[in-house]
Amino acid sequence: MRKWIIGIDLGGTTTKLAFITLEGEITYKWEIPTDKRANGENVVSDISTAINQKLNELNASKESIIGIGMGCPGPVDETTGIVYEAINIGWTNYPLQEELSNATCMPVVIENDANIAALGEMWKGAGSGSKDLVCITLGTGVGGGVIVNGSLVSGANGAAGEIGHLTVVTEKGFRCNCGKTGCLETVASATGFVNLAMEHLDEHPESKITHILKHNGYITAKDVIDCAKVNDLYATEILNRVSFYLGMTLANVANVLNPEKIVIGGGVSKAGSILLENVRRFFEEYSFIRVKKSTQLSIATLGNDAGVIGAAWLVKSHLNE
Amino acid sequence: MRKWIIGIDLGGTTTKLAFITLEGEITYKWEIPTDKRANGENVVSDISTAINQKLNELNASKESIIGIGMGCPGPVDETTGIVYEAINIGWTNYPLQEELSNATCMPVVIENDANIAALGEMWKGAGSGSKDLVCITLGTGVGGGVIVNGSLVSGANGAAGEIGHLTVVTEKGFRCNCGKTGCLETVASATGFVNLAMEHLDEHPESKITHILKHNGYITAKDVIDCAKVNDLYATEILNRVSFYLGMTLANVANVLNPEKIVIGGGVSKAGSILLENVRRFFEEYSFIRVKKSTQLSIATLGNDAGVIGAAWLVKSHLNE
Repeated sequence: MRKWIIGIDLGGTTTKLAFITLEGEITYKWEIPTDKRANGENVVSDISTAINQKLNELNASKESIIGIGMGCPGPVDETTGIVYEAINIGWTNYPLQEELSNATCMPVVIENDANIAALGEMWKGAGSGSKDLVCITLGTGVGGGVIVNGSLVSGANGAAGEIGHLTVVTEKGFRCNCGKTGCLETVASATGFVNLAMEHLDEHPESKITHILKHNGYITAKDVIDCAKVNDLYATEILNRVSFYLGMTLANVANVLNPEKIVIGGGVSKAGSILLENVRRFFEEYSFIRVKKSTQLSIATLGNDAGVIGAAWLVKSHLNE
Repeated sequence: MRKWIIGIDLGGTTTKLAFITLEGEITYKWEIPTDKRANGENVVSDISTAINQKLNELNASKESIIGIGMGCPGPVDETTGIVYEAINIGWTNYPLQEELSNATCMPVVIENDANIAALGEMWKGAGSGSKDLVCITLGTGVGGGVIVNGSLVSGANGAAGEIGHLTVVTEKGFRCNCGKTGCLETVASATGFVNLAMEHLDEHPESKITHILKHNGYITAKDVIDCAKVNDLYATEILNRVSFYLGMTLANVANVLNPEKIVIGGGVSKAGSILLENVRRFFEEYSFIRVKKSTQLSIATLGNDAGVIGAAWLVKSHLNE
């Protein structure tokens, strides 16, 4: 009988599911909408239903499933399986592991979503072969995962890896969702690109970004990056500022941990080499010389699959314990 | 027969040695001068002689020694026991473990000096009971040690824990010995206090620091701290700036690792509560809320003994493997 691990990556809009082999290959993957009504009370039953439907469709039994690994957007206690807080879903101190295990009659392991993405990249992506790895995910916000000696660092309160909340602007920084100001997330996420571009856009009527704003009524991080790719001066200045904040912060993180690799993922990382080369320039300027010589920067390779693959790795590693 | 571990902490001026029980208690401790002539070629034989003399004095045999743990000022490869570089001693790629083991006929384990201080504080000092710990040592420079799950983080190139070289001033920072500018070490070490105080001292003829400079011909970090303790305005401003840089940096480190404790040691930490309270204020301002609630700041308690005790812990932990 074929055996699979189910990897699940819970997001605020969709939930990604995959049947994954013990070797980390995705056999089937699909998405369901995340029902956030009533503080996310339907999330677990929707997942359970989706798994049963897939098993029926494949004419497979529950015995073919080794276990479920699941990533969740917020800090979790990986020992008890409780989600401390998932603001986007509506959960506070929610016993996700217990609920999902009861609903599916399968063993369940949970983790933070940025952390499983890091595990995925370690196992099958850009970090392949590294046991000391930092992943940073540049999406609407900035997430992070820290792996030391092959294991995730969770921290005393589940808050390790909060690289998006390192302070990079100490005066007049943008306000962050976390309550602080000047966090990396406010200047280096998709939102950060827009924050920085809008801040002085009225002084740059000649920029292509101004034209896009007039045409669409709004601008996106992709707009800024696309304009920088065709050498729009103001867009290039914004890209440089984002790269400065990212490069300096990643250098500082690397000066603490000297990981083998730092992997940059998330939607913004699709900008590719124009982002990576700019970030690397500042990373090299601000990193300690022995760190610069040994810590490699690269772009994530698994895209949206990193989470489900990392969630499966988590189950596999628990089996080995 | 009594059994001891020998803990050694090699410094640029003196080398500290101690006979330490398996429970981490110091039975005997003493110091010898560090002979830096001829690129430190006498260091190992001096240590070996000092150990033999102490054994003779105690009428004890080599069999009473379980092993030697030694800390070294510079990055090391803890697997091969090679010191990559110890600028203050004159060593480059020096096979310390092999040399000291050959000279003493005892098993030897080596580590970076800031790292063994961190292990010492974890075992017997301010970090007691914590398995996730960051130590920062404020001396002439700023050293750091990172412990995750009870083990030191060394990094890909032995350069983890270089907290002194996180960049905190991105424009017009002081030049650092490491070749960069604006490192934490340039503004938060003993040297950093002096750098900051001297920078604008000519604008503060009324400050007690100005009088000390005129009287002694130089000023020290202790002078600045002592003046702040008696409410000298300029000295208080300098203490605040140092505390801002330290508090923000430690918050950023804590946002990455969320350790149970951050222990502040080294000569500057003797300033005690006036430093700790100021640093804590900025730490709380810049740390992520879940980190602020769970990561504790405290002053190291072992003083100069942290290194030798941590070196002994290293031997003990190797025995258990």
